[in-house]
Amino acid sequence: MPSATNEVEIKAKAAKAASKKLANLSTAVKNKALLAIADELVGKEKDILAANRLDYREGKKAGMSTAMLDRLLLNTERIKGIAGDVRTVAALPDPVGETFEMRTLPNGLQVGKKRVPLGVIGAVYESRPNVTVDISVLCLKSGNAVMLRGGKEAVHSNSALAKIIQNVAYRAGVPEGAVQFIESTDRAMVGQMLKMRDYIDLVIPRGGADLIKYVAQNAAMPVVTGGIGVCHTYVDRSANLEKAAAIVYNAKVQRPTVCNALDAILVHAEVAKSYLPMVAQQLGRAKVELHCDKRALKILKPLTSIKAVPATEKDWGKEFLALVAAVKVVDSLEEALEHIDRYGSGHSEAIVTEDYSAAMKFLDEVDAACVYVNASTRFTDGGQFGLGAEVGISTQKFHARGPMGLRELTTYKWIVLGSGQVRP
Amino acid sequence: MPSATNEVEIKAKAAKAASKKLANLSTAVKNKALLAIADELVGKEKDILAANRLDYREGKKAGMSTAMLDRLLLNTERIKGIAGDVRTVAALPDPVGETFEMRTLPNGLQVGKKRVPLGVIGAVYESRPNVTVDISVLCLKSGNAVMLRGGKEAVHSNSALAKIIQNVAYRAGVPEGAVQFIESTDRAMVGQMLKMRDYIDLVIPRGGADLIKYVAQNAAMPVVTGGIGVCHTYVDRSANLEKAAAIVYNAKVQRPTVCNALDAILVHAEVAKSYLPMVAQQLGRAKVELHCDKRALKILKPLTSIKAVPATEKDWGKEFLALVAAVKVVDSLEEALEHIDRYGSGHSEAIVTEDYSAAMKFLDEVDAACVYVNASTRFTDGGQFGLGAEVGISTQKFHARGPMGLRELTTYKWIVLGSGQVRP
Repeated sequence: MPSATNEVEIKAKAAKAASKKLANLSTAVKNKALLAIADELVGKEKDILAANRLDYREGKKAGMSTAMLDRLLLNTERIKGIAGDVRTVAALPDPVGETFEMRTLPNGLQVGKKRVPLGVIGAVYESRPNVTVDISVLCLKSGNAVMLRGGKEAVHSNSALAKIIQNVAYRAGVPEGAVQFIESTDRAMVGQMLKMRDYIDLVIPRGGADLIKYVAQNAAMPVVTGGIGVCHTYVDRSANLEKAAAIVYNAKVQRPTVCNALDAILVHAEVAKSYLPMVAQQLGRAKVELHCDKRALKILKPLTSIKAVPATEKDWGKEFLALVAAVKVVDSLEEALEHIDRYGSGHSEAIVTEDYSAAMKFLDEVDAACVYVNASTRFTDGGQFGLGAEVGISTQKFHARGPMGLRELTTYKWIVLGSGQVRP
Repeated sequence: MPSATNEVEIKAKAAKAASKKLANLSTAVKNKALLAIADELVGKEKDILAANRLDYREGKKAGMSTAMLDRLLLNTERIKGIAGDVRTVAALPDPVGETFEMRTLPNGLQVGKKRVPLGVIGAVYESRPNVTVDISVLCLKSGNAVMLRGGKEAVHSNSALAKIIQNVAYRAGVPEGAVQFIESTDRAMVGQMLKMRDYIDLVIPRGGADLIKYVAQNAAMPVVTGGIGVCHTYVDRSANLEKAAAIVYNAKVQRPTVCNALDAILVHAEVAKSYLPMVAQQLGRAKVELHCDKRALKILKPLTSIKAVPATEKDWGKEFLALVAAVKVVDSLEEALEHIDRYGSGHSEAIVTEDYSAAMKFLDEVDAACVYVNASTRFTDGGQFGLGAEVGISTQKFHARGPMGLRELTTYKWIVLGSGQVRP
């Protein structure tokens, strides 16, 4: 058995070698492979569920929480869902090979860009076994090889899924080695993987804040970080208050455990007295707890329909991922902008306003991946934005920002078509 | 006087604060500032030359080479040239504010992207004082604040230039603090600067391979590396040999000291005997030395018009930056592709061929920033490619590849314009 370092290096090298062939694989073969993977996932359901039961049993024995166990669990319906997602990716347009910004220079040279895969994508992720399939097919479709490192707690499920993908893809004509899965659960493997700058072109961490931070700080190659969303909705003095209540309710309640859910409500002092009781009553019915600044608390304390408690400094800039929201009364749009600048995570920020200048100022000045006027931040999502599938949501500024689709797993090369031109 | 850490941190913070205002500065003000900088550089020529004389004298005393001293030297003509370059940047279109890929979703939400500056650009560079002006105006035009750290050997010149830029820009309406210059020549400053991930969004190293490597390995924030070019030209068996000779001659001789100059000639065995003596005679007139593999040496050794010596393993993959080229005879296009894959630096690679399939295969399979058919690699340049001005040439795949213009100093944010939409 190879040592930790060896397994990682051998597999990274194999992925790099495969990536060179994969870069020019036809869309037809890639789609054929994806559809065959979808079929095989359903066909091999029994094997997958058997592996998943091992993980589930071990997780239960180790005292894993019900929520974690639920994330780990696979069943017939979930496997069907995963297979359906694979078919969705197969149906998406292939970003590779697109030629763009092509022009003819005065000397007759044709110069432009051609879209090409990045090469090898490293994925480091936790618990949910569907990520194994998800990332693999997004990489294959975009012509990238992939090196998978899932969480220890799902290793049997991930391994079973990876084997299916590897075998089916190879049979369909995908170069051998295009999908690499690290079997060893030794934590040192992640560290080793993050050093493979010569073989891995980009690392995508998917999981909790700690994992993302660890990968960002230790990777020798570029990393796409994201998924941490401290999202504000600012209700301007000119807001349509019914709209503002519906937007805030949706952003907080529709799915509170995800990154684009609302964390803090900022409300202009002029409308706070009419707006806060209204929205609080609605939020109260959904059992939302409000952590309020002094002025908001004064307005909301008398209400019995909502749990309103004093906010502490920690509540500002906190991603709650639960039915909790911070509430602050501000005296101006500028104060709201400053608060967002200070406490936001650069994910999704919204204003509710009927004032044209306020809307424009908010759009211009908020420095975040997604800036909204009069809509729920819950729309920040590759599917909702029309990208078809989503690799993740980047909160960094480099390369890609916001929801990342297949195109964000590619780069370009300049191509220059001449007829003997030399530089004078 | 503040300590090294303090100077860097204070200035990085100030740059970050300025960048927020700069992001929404109008094109008119930015252009006004650039044109005023150009005027003032010419107007303050005496001060600049006085500072430059200090650097020059110290450099001479320290035993700096003639080439290095020449790079350091400013004179009336060079200052005019620098001012002219600033006017060129002023005349370029402003990339900031462009809205693109905007579409209306079925629910009426308008979703698209808006181009915005990256924030704060850190520049770490060597010797040539013109880089101080060059990088500053490219950053200002693209709405970015900039933190400059030039080489010790040019500190008086750089400081004088930076002061002019700072004063003139501020008077023209650019936010105070947008251009930061590190006065201390303590080497520790660079290390400190590379840790300022919270304030500096991107670092661009400009200088030799050692500097670039140091920055890439030590920066906590993204880095755009590049400028190292090991460039091949492959002469296919179907090449028009006269064209091939002109292209190789131009790529090697027109300016041998730059990154897009030719380093190695690969020639197909079927045409080696007719091609190599022809191109060698031309190269010989320009005093080019050829480092040949066995087969090439056998053909070229009898010629008296060229210095042909045996190549060593070190010659493959070497950036000569001089009138030297490596020469290798290959048996196939595939062998040429393998050689380029192994020894190329991902900068610029060319094929000379009249064979359509060979041209297409080369374009598809070479993994480099710029891939050429039938033209000199010397065209790899922002100006030549029509970008107007060039920040540098990236040989990495992430964010930007090849010549980088103003647009490559920007990112985007998603903007979402709604009328009360919530997610079902």
